[in-house]
Amino acid sequence: MATLGDIGVAAAFNLLSAFVFFIAFAVLRLQPFNDRVYFPKWYLKGLRTSPASSGAFVKKFVNLDFRSYLKFLNWMPEALKMPELELIDHAGLDSAVYLRIYLIGLKIFVPITIVAWAVLVPVNYTNKTLELQLKNVTSSDIDKLSISNIALESDRFWTHIVMAYAFTFWTCFVLLKEYETVASMRLHFLASEKRRPDQFTVLVRNVPPDPDESVSETVEHFFLVNHPDTYLTNQVVCNANKLAKLVKQRKKKQNWLDYYQLKYSRNNAQRPIMKTGFLGLCGKKVDAIEHHEAEIGKLSKEIAEERERVKKDPKAIMPAAFVSFKSRWGAAVCAQTQQSRDPTSWLTEWAPEPCDVYWPNLPIPYVSLAIRRLIMAVAFFFLTFFFMIPIASVQALASIEGLEKVAPFLKPIIDMKFIKSVIQGILPGLALKLFLIFLPAILMIMAKFEGFTSKSSLERRAATRYYLFNLVNVFLGSIVAGSALEQLNTFIKQSANEIPRTIGVAVPLRATFFITYIMVDGWAGIAGEILMLKPLIIYHLKNFFLVKTEKDREEAMDPGSLGFNTGEPQIQLYFLLGLVYAAVTPALLPFIVIFFGLAYVVFRHQIINVYNQEYESAAAFWPDVHGRIIIALLISQVALIGLLTSKKAAQSTPFLIALVVLTIWFYTFCKARYEPAFVRYPLQEAMMKDTLERAREPNLNLKPYLQNAYIHPVFKEEDEEDEFDFKSENESVLVPTKRQSRRSTPAPSRISGASSPSLPPEVVPEHPERAS
Amino acid sequence: MATLGDIGVAAAFNLLSAFVFFIAFAVLRLQPFNDRVYFPKWYLKGLRTSPASSGAFVKKFVNLDFRSYLKFLNWMPEALKMPELELIDHAGLDSAVYLRIYLIGLKIFVPITIVAWAVLVPVNYTNKTLELQLKNVTSSDIDKLSISNIALESDRFWTHIVMAYAFTFWTCFVLLKEYETVASMRLHFLASEKRRPDQFTVLVRNVPPDPDESVSETVEHFFLVNHPDTYLTNQVVCNANKLAKLVKQRKKKQNWLDYYQLKYSRNNAQRPIMKTGFLGLCGKKVDAIEHHEAEIGKLSKEIAEERERVKKDPKAIMPAAFVSFKSRWGAAVCAQTQQSRDPTSWLTEWAPEPCDVYWPNLPIPYVSLAIRRLIMAVAFFFLTFFFMIPIASVQALASIEGLEKVAPFLKPIIDMKFIKSVIQGILPGLALKLFLIFLPAILMIMAKFEGFTSKSSLERRAATRYYLFNLVNVFLGSIVAGSALEQLNTFIKQSANEIPRTIGVAVPLRATFFITYIMVDGWAGIAGEILMLKPLIIYHLKNFFLVKTEKDREEAMDPGSLGFNTGEPQIQLYFLLGLVYAAVTPALLPFIVIFFGLAYVVFRHQIINVYNQEYESAAAFWPDVHGRIIIALLISQVALIGLLTSKKAAQSTPFLIALVVLTIWFYTFCKARYEPAFVRYPLQEAMMKDTLERAREPNLNLKPYLQNAYIHPVFKEEDEEDEFDFKSENESVLVPTKRQSRRSTPAPSRISGASSPSLPPEVVPEHPERAS
Repeated sequence: MATLGDIGVAAAFNLLSAFVFFIAFAVLRLQPFNDRVYFPKWYLKGLRTSPASSGAFVKKFVNLDFRSYLKFLNWMPEALKMPELELIDHAGLDSAVYLRIYLIGLKIFVPITIVAWAVLVPVNYTNKTLELQLKNVTSSDIDKLSISNIALESDRFWTHIVMAYAFTFWTCFVLLKEYETVASMRLHFLASEKRRPDQFTVLVRNVPPDPDESVSETVEHFFLVNHPDTYLTNQVVCNANKLAKLVKQRKKKQNWLDYYQLKYSRNNAQRPIMKTGFLGLCGKKVDAIEHHEAEIGKLSKEIAEERERVKKDPKAIMPAAFVSFKSRWGAAVCAQTQQSRDPTSWLTEWAPEPCDVYWPNLPIPYVSLAIRRLIMAVAFFFLTFFFMIPIASVQALASIEGLEKVAPFLKPIIDMKFIKSVIQGILPGLALKLFLIFLPAILMIMAKFEGFTSKSSLERRAATRYYLFNLVNVFLGSIVAGSALEQLNTFIKQSANEIPRTIGVAVPLRATFFITYIMVDGWAGIAGEILMLKPLIIYHLKNFFLVKTEKDREEAMDPGSLGFNTGEPQIQLYFLLGLVYAAVTPALLPFIVIFFGLAYVVFRHQIINVYNQEYESAAAFWPDVHGRIIIALLISQVALIGLLTSKKAAQSTPFLIALVVLTIWFYTFCKARYEPAFVRYPLQEAMMKDTLERAREPNLNLKPYLQNAYIHPVFKEEDEEDEFDFKSENESVLVPTKRQSRRSTPAPSRISGASSPSLPPEVVPEHPERAS
Repeated sequence: MATLGDIGVAAAFNLLSAFVFFIAFAVLRLQPFNDRVYFPKWYLKGLRTSPASSGAFVKKFVNLDFRSYLKFLNWMPEALKMPELELIDHAGLDSAVYLRIYLIGLKIFVPITIVAWAVLVPVNYTNKTLELQLKNVTSSDIDKLSISNIALESDRFWTHIVMAYAFTFWTCFVLLKEYETVASMRLHFLASEKRRPDQFTVLVRNVPPDPDESVSETVEHFFLVNHPDTYLTNQVVCNANKLAKLVKQRKKKQNWLDYYQLKYSRNNAQRPIMKTGFLGLCGKKVDAIEHHEAEIGKLSKEIAEERERVKKDPKAIMPAAFVSFKSRWGAAVCAQTQQSRDPTSWLTEWAPEPCDVYWPNLPIPYVSLAIRRLIMAVAFFFLTFFFMIPIASVQALASIEGLEKVAPFLKPIIDMKFIKSVIQGILPGLALKLFLIFLPAILMIMAKFEGFTSKSSLERRAATRYYLFNLVNVFLGSIVAGSALEQLNTFIKQSANEIPRTIGVAVPLRATFFITYIMVDGWAGIAGEILMLKPLIIYHLKNFFLVKTEKDREEAMDPGSLGFNTGEPQIQLYFLLGLVYAAVTPALLPFIVIFFGLAYVVFRHQIINVYNQEYESAAAFWPDVHGRIIIALLISQVALIGLLTSKKAAQSTPFLIALVVLTIWFYTFCKARYEPAFVRYPLQEAMMKDTLERAREPNLNLKPYLQNAYIHPVFKEEDEEDEFDFKSENESVLVPTKRQSRRSTPAPSRISGASSPSLPPEVVPEHPERAS
């Protein structure tokens, strides 16, 4: 067991490595040639132009102003400077609320840490149980601060129970306040935002087939009858999945063509040659430029044909449609009510924002959906509990003996001592590591298979599954030690009152492990996030090989997005650890607090400068976040029950069971009280907004605005010129007028040597009425 | 263990006693002076008049026509004769669908019984395990037919697994079909029924207080703004609970006054005397008539004052209102959408039918509701698992020693041998029996405390709780043997894979007990139901002491109603027993089939002739019934898993777990597919009905019709004259014109000697369009 000193050294080491990351980041971000990697958000918003357009040649690539290096941590206060309303305007509500998850972590754990160190640590430390018990073992200092140091049947356990109550009430209080705030932020956001097509539109699925009418006509007639006063127009959904695939292929070929053309232009002596076979490794040698031009020509023809087919073939029209209404009230009514006798046809739900629509899933029929959910539920169960089986077999294969058996010709190489040790050391771990890296992608594919219709709901579902996987395999896996399959076996064979005990006993023993985990995975992970190594490398590769014009450079940028499906479940793990250890080993808490603080600053910086959110779901994910923190609370209570039982303080169990019941009740209360704000749209709000709009723009004609809001992105790309009016109107939501002035003046950072696109103090929130 | 012969004797005895009940019933119901006890439904509908009005004096009381006694079982085919559409018309959809629960029992269990006897019984019987095992114990014949007779690890268990699949699929198939039928019956009923105020009305609760406006004004303004096209009118809810109590008191006193006046009129010599103290046992002696007249006068004055207060005092107006709309579409929209930002104010739900409203609960605010639910959930947990504790203490008190300690003066009496044995024999059981008799009432009080707003939802909630209580204390209590508290202890201390085993092993052993239970509780209970002993006695007592006029006699009738909260949970117990034993001990199945057959006939008779349904919820209870049968299926599968594991056929477990998963999936599928029909009202239907109505009655003015539909029944009683128009219109729904002709002609039964109010063949369903 580690002593306090060991932990201190490890903490210092990890803090130092995080510090190194920060310094590397500070240096890299000041170099103009990295500008598009570290500030893509500003480029995408048109508020920053390429530094290459002005100044001396060297200055274009390297920042020679040494003063700027001195203030290398300046980005931290700057990231914190932007007020929240401005942030919502800049990066959307989703990102702003995502940051609140870190903030909620600070709000919960800072007071808990202080109280725990003020009360629990003295209570624990003034015992001598461990010294008496383990005379011959050097007991860890961390354990002296923890509950392990208290003797069996001691009355001191009452302190822990009181603290468990205090921590639960404090957490619930913070959660309640936060739910209230986020709900009102969401409603406020929906109320104050400009006109958006999804406010007027409902997605209708499972339109029943009609032998005499086309889908569009059926929809039109149905809604003219059942919503006579509010129905406006509809757009049917085409099955353009094949078309989208072809367009994607052409784009890829076009990229290669660009690459070869650039190569040829640099070296006119030799026409580039390529092989047509697998990955360009085998097959016939051909002239690369000609080959790709021919391929592109062929694809373009196919695309044109497919486009015609999709437009004309009635089979390509899916039984789903986006139905638009004359008023938000009409859309709100339609989205919240059942339309037809048969509850599996004419299913209505709010249309996702146009960017948020996940097109391939729109045509799935109802019964198929139910079966897909069943299959995925079973598949996820096996994935969680049996994922070690295929990996173990791969590991067996990847062992020395396995390799020699499968590929005897490799024997001479394998038998070399260096190679052998590499294989033995790396290969088995590699299989597991690769699986864990691909896990979020696998979960995303599963969510897609289930048929969700918006990207935001796909991410939410994938996040839920990732969370469960982490809970079982990381948290319980570390505590009960063993694969999930073995745990399952353990838990099934144990009685209901043994399970909390098994967990509870193990919890204090694993404190040191989790402290290390927090430092390595949490601190270093966060610090690594800000370096953006992967996008940095890819950008420079692309820049070197492909970029010819400013537009190419724009496309080479990869700002990425928040990735709710990978990020949030990881944060939840820290909530879980913090709450479980709060009453048991308070020594762990400061590490959690540092994690949340660091992550908050880093992600605030990233959201302001880097990430470009793909869609806007108006914080629809909050109920999930809230629910998972409650689950963490419940797990912490159950673990404490188990621990206290094993400490022969079982008379306390009824008190803690009462706490569990209260927590569950709190969850149902919050669910009934606040969740509707994230699912439904109150008619009062809709009516208010409609009335305001009608008063301001009495002659507004919505039909042309909504007519083409929901066309498949494949069609949109080509029709872009026709749609200019629509797009410019849409963009005005994102880029308010004031910013035009910044676009023309060069960004101050590179000239004055200031270290970032800090906002000038005169930038105040643009919609002062929002603050009210 | 009982042999087949023993069971046969018991069955014969129970069938005989049921037969005796039926003969008693046949004799009693033919006596004209019992007519109002056995045919109250027809009196209430005005289709039958008192037999006392015609014929010879003796004939008024006793049926002397001996031919009628010969056909004493005639009521059975007659009960089955009435077609279902006629039944819906006669007794409402609730009653008709309630009968379908018995029918579904027959549909499920008749084929299962046949298959089980054809396949499982031979497979079980051709083994010799029991003979070999228990050479010195006379093994029961029942067990030879059961799974107990199969050797460990036998391959014959595959038959049982295949049968479990077959039974599950058949049950699910029947359930699916039935859900579909009931859902379409419900929609059809809602669509074809006449205009009813609840179709246009929404119950709004938690109206936020407004300092400047009364509740009625606030509601009016809110809905005029947010539903401008459809809002019609509103009626606020008064807190008339005190007034209702006073009126009830006065009625009681009036009853006593009538009694004393009748007594005085019979014996003019002596004015009746009463004591004013507790229960008339102590206190001052006064003249009873004068005393009651004075009391009634006082109460009448109080009532008048209270009525004025309720009408004027703004504090008596509750923040709840019935809001009526111009069209069904408008009401459907309002009931299904969220109105305000704050999801805990302006809560809207469909208004229950006026008779179904449970007035005292309307004013409960939202937060209080959430807390009440928590308290009741905890209370119910304790009631289920710890109810034996107070009863055991009462039993201890009721023992000889306990009584002697508490009341030493009783010692001489108690010491008498006869009294002693009575106390020892009866008292301990009495406490438990009394508790079980009062349990439904206790559960109903709990449901009322939780704040449901309609009688139908109160009954549904009480039924759910009663079902759980039965499941834990009757089913598991008989299987695991011991009080619920001991079971809880057993289950907590056992591991998850031990629990199914504990249940599974015990299931075949308890078969004989459950067969006896079915015969005693099921068969005899059903046969007792038809005798209506309690209403019979009470009616004759009232008739003798109180009845002066025809109206009094009408009030003395107590037809009762179906009592969903007591009846349905008991039926569910038989579903559970049938499904659990289907694959284990098929010998039990015929007893279940006889129960369902008998119950179907008896309840059909009762619904046609006796019960008077208080309200009409349009079969809103069906999702509960469906869900509980699925729970029974799941329990049967888990028990089989446990049993087969104990039989060392554990390799079959995965197959049965797959069955469990499929069953759960089936449940979620049905829930999503059919439950909306019981919760929401599709806009298409509403629109269709509105359009039809507008076409038929273009000049209809709904306002006067809806204005007073929802006034507190206390006000209604006095305003009856003013409301005559409304009531007559309302009644026309219940009593169609044709029946007026029957009212004037004497009912044929008593004159011709035919044995029941059989329906003449010309009575066809009155709404032929319904059949389409």
